[in-house]
Amino acid sequence: MVNVSDRIDGRKAAELRPVSFSRGWLDHAEGSVLVEFGRTRVLVAASVTEGVPRWRRGSGLGWVTSEYEMLPRATNTRNDRESRKGRIGGRTHEISRLIGRSLRGVIDYKALGENTIVIDCDVLQADGGTRTASITGAYVALSDAVSWLRARHLLAGEPLIGSVSAISVGIVRGQPMLDLCYEEDSSADVDMNIVCSGTGDFIEVQGTAEGAPFDRDLLNQLLDLGQAGCAELTRMQAEALAEPVHR
Amino acid sequence: MVNVSDRIDGRKAAELRPVSFSRGWLDHAEGSVLVEFGRTRVLVAASVTEGVPRWRRGSGLGWVTSEYEMLPRATNTRNDRESRKGRIGGRTHEISRLIGRSLRGVIDYKALGENTIVIDCDVLQADGGTRTASITGAYVALSDAVSWLRARHLLAGEPLIGSVSAISVGIVRGQPMLDLCYEEDSSADVDMNIVCSGTGDFIEVQGTAEGAPFDRDLLNQLLDLGQAGCAELTRMQAEALAEPVHR
Amino acid sequence: MVNVSDRIDGRKAAELRPVSFSRGWLDHAEGSVLVEFGRTRVLVAASVTEGVPRWRRGSGLGWVTSEYEMLPRATNTRNDRESRKGRIGGRTHEISRLIGRSLRGVIDYKALGENTIVIDCDVLQADGGTRTASITGAYVALSDAVSWLRARHLLAGEPLIGSVSAISVGIVRGQPMLDLCYEEDSSADVDMNIVCSGTGDFIEVQGTAEGAPFDRDLLNQLLDLGQAGCAELTRMQAEALAEPVHR
Amino acid sequence: MVNVSDRIDGRKAAELRPVSFSRGWLDHAEGSVLVEFGRTRVLVAASVTEGVPRWRRGSGLGWVTSEYEMLPRATNTRNDRESRKGRIGGRTHEISRLIGRSLRGVIDYKALGENTIVIDCDVLQADGGTRTASITGAYVALSDAVSWLRARHLLAGEPLIGSVSAISVGIVRGQPMLDLCYEEDSSADVDMNIVCSGTGDFIEVQGTAEGAPFDRDLLNQLLDLGQAGCAELTRMQAEALAEPVHR
Amino acid sequence: MVNVSDRIDGRKAAELRPVSFSRGWLDHAEGSVLVEFGRTRVLVAASVTEGVPRWRRGSGLGWVTSEYEMLPRATNTRNDRESRKGRIGGRTHEISRLIGRSLRGVIDYKALGENTIVIDCDVLQADGGTRTASITGAYVALSDAVSWLRARHLLAGEPLIGSVSAISVGIVRGQPMLDLCYEEDSSADVDMNIVCSGTGDFIEVQGTAEGAPFDRDLLNQLLDLGQAGCAELTRMQAEALAEPVHR
Amino acid sequence: MVNVSDRIDGRKAAELRPVSFSRGWLDHAEGSVLVEFGRTRVLVAASVTEGVPRWRRGSGLGWVTSEYEMLPRATNTRNDRESRKGRIGGRTHEISRLIGRSLRGVIDYKALGENTIVIDCDVLQADGGTRTASITGAYVALSDAVSWLRARHLLAGEPLIGSVSAISVGIVRGQPMLDLCYEEDSSADVDMNIVCSGTGDFIEVQGTAEGAPFDRDLLNQLLDLGQAGCAELTRMQAEALAEPVHR
Repeated sequence: MVNVSDRIDGRKAAELRPVSFSRGWLDHAEGSVLVEFGRTRVLVAASVTEGVPRWRRGSGLGWVTSEYEMLPRATNTRNDRESRKGRIGGRTHEISRLIGRSLRGVIDYKALGENTIVIDCDVLQADGGTRTASITGAYVALSDAVSWLRARHLLAGEPLIGSVSAISVGIVRGQPMLDLCYEEDSSADVDMNIVCSGTGDFIEVQGTAEGAPFDRDLLNQLLDLGQAGCAELTRMQAEALAEPVHR
Repeated sequence: MVNVSDRIDGRKAAELRPVSFSRGWLDHAEGSVLVEFGRTRVLVAASVTEGVPRWRRGSGLGWVTSEYEMLPRATNTRNDRESRKGRIGGRTHEISRLIGRSLRGVIDYKALGENTIVIDCDVLQADGGTRTASITGAYVALSDAVSWLRARHLLAGEPLIGSVSAISVGIVRGQPMLDLCYEEDSSADVDMNIVCSGTGDFIEVQGTAEGAPFDRDLLNQLLDLGQAGCAELTRMQAEALAEPVHR
Repeated sequence: MVNVSDRIDGRKAAELRPVSFSRGWLDHAEGSVLVEFGRTRVLVAASVTEGVPRWRRGSGLGWVTSEYEMLPRATNTRNDRESRKGRIGGRTHEISRLIGRSLRGVIDYKALGENTIVIDCDVLQADGGTRTASITGAYVALSDAVSWLRARHLLAGEPLIGSVSAISVGIVRGQPMLDLCYEEDSSADVDMNIVCSGTGDFIEVQGTAEGAPFDRDLLNQLLDLGQAGCAELTRMQAEALAEPVHR
Repeated sequence: MVNVSDRIDGRKAAELRPVSFSRGWLDHAEGSVLVEFGRTRVLVAASVTEGVPRWRRGSGLGWVTSEYEMLPRATNTRNDRESRKGRIGGRTHEISRLIGRSLRGVIDYKALGENTIVIDCDVLQADGGTRTASITGAYVALSDAVSWLRARHLLAGEPLIGSVSAISVGIVRGQPMLDLCYEEDSSADVDMNIVCSGTGDFIEVQGTAEGAPFDRDLLNQLLDLGQAGCAELTRMQAEALAEPVHR
Repeated sequence: MVNVSDRIDGRKAAELRPVSFSRGWLDHAEGSVLVEFGRTRVLVAASVTEGVPRWRRGSGLGWVTSEYEMLPRATNTRNDRESRKGRIGGRTHEISRLIGRSLRGVIDYKALGENTIVIDCDVLQADGGTRTASITGAYVALSDAVSWLRARHLLAGEPLIGSVSAISVGIVRGQPMLDLCYEEDSSADVDMNIVCSGTGDFIEVQGTAEGAPFDRDLLNQLLDLGQAGCAELTRMQAEALAEPVHR
Repeated sequence: MVNVSDRIDGRKAAELRPVSFSRGWLDHAEGSVLVEFGRTRVLVAASVTEGVPRWRRGSGLGWVTSEYEMLPRATNTRNDRESRKGRIGGRTHEISRLIGRSLRGVIDYKALGENTIVIDCDVLQADGGTRTASITGAYVALSDAVSWLRARHLLAGEPLIGSVSAISVGIVRGQPMLDLCYEEDSSADVDMNIVCSGTGDFIEVQGTAEGAPFDRDLLNQLLDLGQAGCAELTRMQAEALAEPVHR
């Protein structure tokens, strides 16, 4: 179904951009990674604190949440800071919520105990796929934060019941493509984000027709591409996590 | 695939709740409808203004946008007003954006001319499916607003190139179900919203695993259910719009 | 003093618009009513919660408060949402406070016990007199909420020591008139709101010269008109409350 | 009707507190006055700017508006600043609007020409009656600002078509009283503010039952008291304005 | 180094403007002073409350903090209120923090006990040097508030371990000058604020090149001027505090 | 004056931490650098836009401004985002203003022409001295942005009339020290920031007694240290800028 194509960066339709994980990029955070999908660069920090939000106290359950934001000059032209505008935009809210939901799908809160892990995803440079890079990196940082807790015997069990990765897919000039860069993304007819567990099942599926509505057959092609891309990212995450942290 | 089931309100798995459209519910708005999906009740107003936002002026293109909000006592227990909190929550932002995207998929901006239509969806009572009821009602109100413009010869062509309807589907106690009420929704393992064009193609597909990740087969069952539900809503919208407006 | 007049809707100077109360309009709220004064339509919800704000705890006294807001397309042209603007306007604040004060005038807090009742008045459609319709409807919803508490034996006594109704009066083209619609209101020389107890005494009197200052004689005519209008509304409230709730 | 009384500061029921106007208290403002009603002390500044708000441009009409605020330690215990809270409270909004309305009642906008006058009323010390002291002082500052414009030949005519003064009245321990200090105000059964023109007519009448509703007879007594108090303030304003400004 | 000069108000280069302290200007505040440096006029209120912020409870230590703000018409042209803008500007924040730091340098928190003193500095009229007038006045108000606590035996010791005064210095038309008025300040090449203890040591030194960078020799001349000015203010503060308070 | 010392990281009192500049760290920005002072790591982006703010249009002059912010996990424990809090803290404002002032000291606005350069300093990791690292890096990014403009012939002359560097100094355990890390900074008795031009003159001097006030002799030692540190940074900046940019 997917063939050789002349994508703007020479990739094949089903090919990921170069992906890298620099674990331990921050000295203070319990888990951290600088994740890169091509020129997209996201700094992810996982912060552990003892205790949980008020509404969850005494439940014996932990909590994982996430915040996403872009630096003003991550993009081609500068965007005003949301802190200066005094309000967070809908897009930022939407992505923060997506990352949190994706991670919560692989967490056993009972095993985490009454600990909170906050995942901060700050986009230092954006070239498409910032939300999927964030989720994919967030799993790595989360995993390191859990190791940090484990090493200190602060867990009630094994809180990570699976892994998570995410990738964007889309229809560009009529053809399904994997891992869209900004230029492809902005001319795509359909834009879709797939979040999968390490076992290849879906955690989140989110597709939007930017132009004309799309049919079931195209949807199936996109799902195939996305599942394959996530599987490859799962392998890369496992490899990265097999190394010792470079602090 | 979908059989008789004992749903809490006696419906079959693939059955919609009673749906009604009260067009012309407001005297001032160019288009308006009180849409009901069971006990979910959304007041939709379509407001036409001449001109477009600054960044679009002189383009010859129109603009359609949407805002969604819930009254404080739409739900079982009262929620604080977002106007009092001084900030709009992530959920409100997310749904407002979804409605806008869904409608923009069937609009020909050139034919609309430099006119703006704002669609306000205010949830008067919530019992699950408020976003899908909003989208489904929004198409009806939008259609009436377009008729209002047409009657005044303010259009450059025919701006509505299709219809839009939306429905929620989900996996409840292991079984795929259509049009979840609040109680079903809050215990669902997978929660999905399907937005279709009148021709049965997808405008938006959004599914989330609330519990365990879901496989491709379950996803396919949900897509089948959702497409069938949207087709039924498309018929109901057409029927409602065939009547004269009751102001 | 008040004679036959050619008001824009054919009413006499001292005549109310058609008034209706649809009790139990909402399924979740402990008390609710859709109140209509002509084309003005306000959805009032009374929400009961156990307990009182922190500063009142342990006093044995209850609390009643109110919030008023207009839907964006309640009016002839669309108004921006206050939640989007990030701040509540002075008019909204002023009316919310007026409604709260008016109701607190007929509540025995000791008899209410440490319960809080929040009255939400959301204007679905505005055609003048939204604050007086809100107050008049709020008494009905409050009364139903108190019945709800009584039926559950959650009261320390009888908290309603009277009823409240409210009506607008004004001088239009030199003549005192009752219950101004929007068009009359916007051309009035004097604009006044009268809130009365069921016994015909004043709870709030608020009159403003929009044009030239007004003399004592005109004020007296307005007070006469307002007291008569409130008395009529008191009878209508009693009739409405004598019926069983239609949920 | 009003007799000798043992008020907490020894005044008679119908007696004003000592009132003083220090005109020209500020060096920069076009009009300014430090007005004192007993221990209540309000600094009023009238700022003239050429031009009017955008929505009024080209109309040939001027604009007058007002803002009221309290310093944090104007009161017995310190209040948080509204600038720090990031939002203006309902009371502040309500009073700002009242002052603006009261002044606009005596302005001929055409004669003012396209000039804007902003009246800032900042309460340096509060002991009841801050809104009535503000209005009464605001007229004096406004009058000086108009003189400033007149001296520079910037007016299209005579914009002040009357004077304005305001006073509070109330029922304290069953007796009508004039010009309530804080202690009286906080125990009053009825609290009323009267704004009159120099000719003794009403610009605004605003009365609230803090306890039991009040009847027509009491209302009449309060109106008598208030009209008499305003007449006295009108005389004092005229005297103050007859002096040269002490800058 | 400093000679006779033709400053715009006839002062010598090393001469302060007339300085006055009106203690007890407010009736409610535990300490208050209207401080004047020429036409700059700041109302300072020191408010005592029992207890300390949550993060300091149980420490046995007190807390002193400060807030600075300008009335809208303190300046030559009117500035919008920060409460209306919904956000506090950087300059206001910066000065509030400076005042707090300066005072905390002379407080023994243990001797203060778990009491909080909030210092409000509200600029009624601005003509340069508002931050230094605020600090200099704040010490006087703080001192009175401490006396208030002492008289009520609420102190654990003697919390004031020194005095604080502050003055601005700058280079205007090439010459070092003391206590710049607004006109001098706005044309200064270097603008510096010096905060000294009563013993002549530095609490804060803050100098900025508005034009060309300045050398060490000029810096030394400014430090000499500033230390001398602060010494003079220290004497004036002591004189003012030696008098009984005029309430 | 300054001798060998046992500082916590083994440095001498007058020794800088390792400093590095990674120019061209971002692909989109006209100038960018990742600047490191020991473990303190700041990403600086200089964004060029044609045109200037409204109040400066038509003047022929350019504009340079700056915004500073910390990522939530830059520090030892996580800080809430200012965008979420809906307001920018005083410290953030203060530092943003300091950076802007420092850079404006070496800019010839006429030569810049009507172009705006915004300098964003985002602290990725904080270990003391974030504001001085920001200023020192900002000069490098600004210099690259100016080169970008020069290469496109968009300048009216040579806008950089000097260079800027900044360093912190302080008194720790009685001894003056250069370039404090976080642990030293938090126990310092005096904390000072020195901003110098490349010619060794002062652009900003800002010193605060955290504990006891400090005398003139100590101040002089700190100024010596700071001037020497800035001179060393000036050399490093020149070296870094002599290299071609590594994009």
